[in-house]
Amino acid sequence: MREVAVIGVGMHKWGELWDMSLRNMFLLAAHNAIADAGVDHIDSMYVGCMSCGLFAAQEHIGSLLADYLGVTPIPAMRVESACASGGAAVRLGWMEVASGISDIVLVGGVEKMTDITGDEATFTLSTAADTEWEGYQGVTFPGLYAMMARAHMEKYGSTMEQFSLVSVKNHANGTLNPYAQYPFPVTLEAVMNSTKVAEPLRLLHCSPITDGAAAAILCPLDLARQKFKNHPLTVITGSGMATDTIALHSRADLTTIKAATIAAKKAYALASVGPRDIDFAEVHDCFANAEVMVTEAIGFFEAGDGGPAVQRGDTTRDGKLPINTSGGLKSKGHPVGATGVAQIIEVVEQLRGEAGKRQIKKAHRGLAQNMGGSGGSSVVHILERR
Amino acid sequence: MREVAVIGVGMHKWGELWDMSLRNMFLLAAHNAIADAGVDHIDSMYVGCMSCGLFAAQEHIGSLLADYLGVTPIPAMRVESACASGGAAVRLGWMEVASGISDIVLVGGVEKMTDITGDEATFTLSTAADTEWEGYQGVTFPGLYAMMARAHMEKYGSTMEQFSLVSVKNHANGTLNPYAQYPFPVTLEAVMNSTKVAEPLRLLHCSPITDGAAAAILCPLDLARQKFKNHPLTVITGSGMATDTIALHSRADLTTIKAATIAAKKAYALASVGPRDIDFAEVHDCFANAEVMVTEAIGFFEAGDGGPAVQRGDTTRDGKLPINTSGGLKSKGHPVGATGVAQIIEVVEQLRGEAGKRQIKKAHRGLAQNMGGSGGSSVVHILERR
Repeated sequence: MREVAVIGVGMHKWGELWDMSLRNMFLLAAHNAIADAGVDHIDSMYVGCMSCGLFAAQEHIGSLLADYLGVTPIPAMRVESACASGGAAVRLGWMEVASGISDIVLVGGVEKMTDITGDEATFTLSTAADTEWEGYQGVTFPGLYAMMARAHMEKYGSTMEQFSLVSVKNHANGTLNPYAQYPFPVTLEAVMNSTKVAEPLRLLHCSPITDGAAAAILCPLDLARQKFKNHPLTVITGSGMATDTIALHSRADLTTIKAATIAAKKAYALASVGPRDIDFAEVHDCFANAEVMVTEAIGFFEAGDGGPAVQRGDTTRDGKLPINTSGGLKSKGHPVGATGVAQIIEVVEQLRGEAGKRQIKKAHRGLAQNMGGSGGSSVVHILERR
Repeated sequence: MREVAVIGVGMHKWGELWDMSLRNMFLLAAHNAIADAGVDHIDSMYVGCMSCGLFAAQEHIGSLLADYLGVTPIPAMRVESACASGGAAVRLGWMEVASGISDIVLVGGVEKMTDITGDEATFTLSTAADTEWEGYQGVTFPGLYAMMARAHMEKYGSTMEQFSLVSVKNHANGTLNPYAQYPFPVTLEAVMNSTKVAEPLRLLHCSPITDGAAAAILCPLDLARQKFKNHPLTVITGSGMATDTIALHSRADLTTIKAATIAAKKAYALASVGPRDIDFAEVHDCFANAEVMVTEAIGFFEAGDGGPAVQRGDTTRDGKLPINTSGGLKSKGHPVGATGVAQIIEVVEQLRGEAGKRQIKKAHRGLAQNMGGSGGSSVVHILERR
């Protein structure tokens, strides 16, 4: 197994982009990643996308995007694990480079979510849950995460103020991210009094619906050392993926995300590190309580201490363990298939020392945790500066 | 890179299965593959599926199917390359085992196509083409393949009788396949006089809409030799994938399938063989002329000789190079995400000498060619008996 470097990253301004199609957005991100890396070709491509069929009436986007990117006949396929599709694409690219099958692999993600109505988008997103037992019964994602929030509050005494402070922190970080969909600050009061969505969750606890793409270029570390010296080197040292029951009713415990725990354990083992060795992380804050639950599940805080940790300021940019310096899904936006790749991009930019106004002081080793559905799947990567 | 064996295969009777859901079908195929292999666990899973979103309102089927198969928390993801999704799943499983990342990997495919109307299914399938430039202009797949058929007839003098004989041959093979959707013979006259679909293609030149699943179990050859001795050993010796322009109008030549040519070249190179070393093959006969075009594209026959080869009987079960002994997509059915895995299963059963009444005499090395859209992607695998 070869060590795998991330030599290029590419994003664009995310938002409600009515003047850009799925292919336009992906090309923009991919071109930026290719330019950032300085590569003159790609050997293979993986694209994470949750539901280009329901959102954009377009499947077969491996072929479509290889075609429009002008890189046919390389192998290119789409990979899907709901909102963890981007993380899954990174994992496959890592596997292909690590195994020696290909040298230069583009891993990307894209989702074009605003060409259908809000109701249709809510339905489409619900297909990441168990359609027969959840979606068709009217339980959509705010409802699922609301149940998890209630269970966490009941078991550990977590408060809505703690969850709300996640949104406040992530929006504060997002103000410094030029690509964020909603780069404005929000106050605790605004979050706690925003429109009710699914009790106890309110609008400003929920990540938005977003059009966006993200891309990164992977290659063997040796090749990166020889040829691609545009940036300080960053390496994927750990990768883990795990699944759990897709439906919430099948879980023994609603207060944790078992798939994240197991995916993180695998990634830690591969990287020969533990949660205390991580300097900062991007985690999947699709809802404010998800960030709290995940930071507990992957060992950053004891179970029940995730909420208090936010209140103590441990997870701010100058806290002990900065979480979601990019603004997270909440402020940066959540084009579901692209999110997992964008998380990797933030980690890489922080490791490189190229995160601009968002740059944190200690950034030697970062983690990215991507999640599908209500935790039916999770992908975790660990990256280090070399 | 480790050599990868296929130690178990599982199918079920395909058809218009109104009493079975996507998850039911997949579990049936997966259980059959697990029992066939004799494994007591799985390390990882890839599921090929083109459009569970549009066909069945269910994405995130990696999590769903791992859950219902009772194998969580293993990594499980869906992979999509339109009708080549099954082949793509096999390729990823091969990569994961070959690289040493996992030992026992389930690769499966599934598509539940008949829960929506025929019109809706036609639209859903059209999302494998370029939606903006083809689907939204009213060009669906019979129309795309009809244009390719016309071009081939114009350039090489291929005849509708030659194309029709593909359907006759494949239905004859399908009568011997207990899992085939349409296991009945058709006469040349019946094919040539069947209902017009898109000139010059008629109903019996087109593969059907099908509910179905297929699964196979992969492991390192060494492990297979030590532990899994239920069947004669079969090994994946070649794997290749390639893309081409997704839209037909962007191609320089409509009479060939460039992605199939390149995917096959890669697979031949990896297996250190050429087309003349292949004893038999499953190829992607989504339309009768596709089989002719593919057998030329992957080097079995000279360009323009694919039609005459059918007429000479070269591709029958007792011909020089038997093609689609399973009945092909035409008679066995075409649940798009499952097809690529089912092709591998037929090759494995022939190599093992376990193909029952379909068994051919010389089956030492077989090839499976799977295709997405009108050739926007193709995956080729070569398998050998050990």
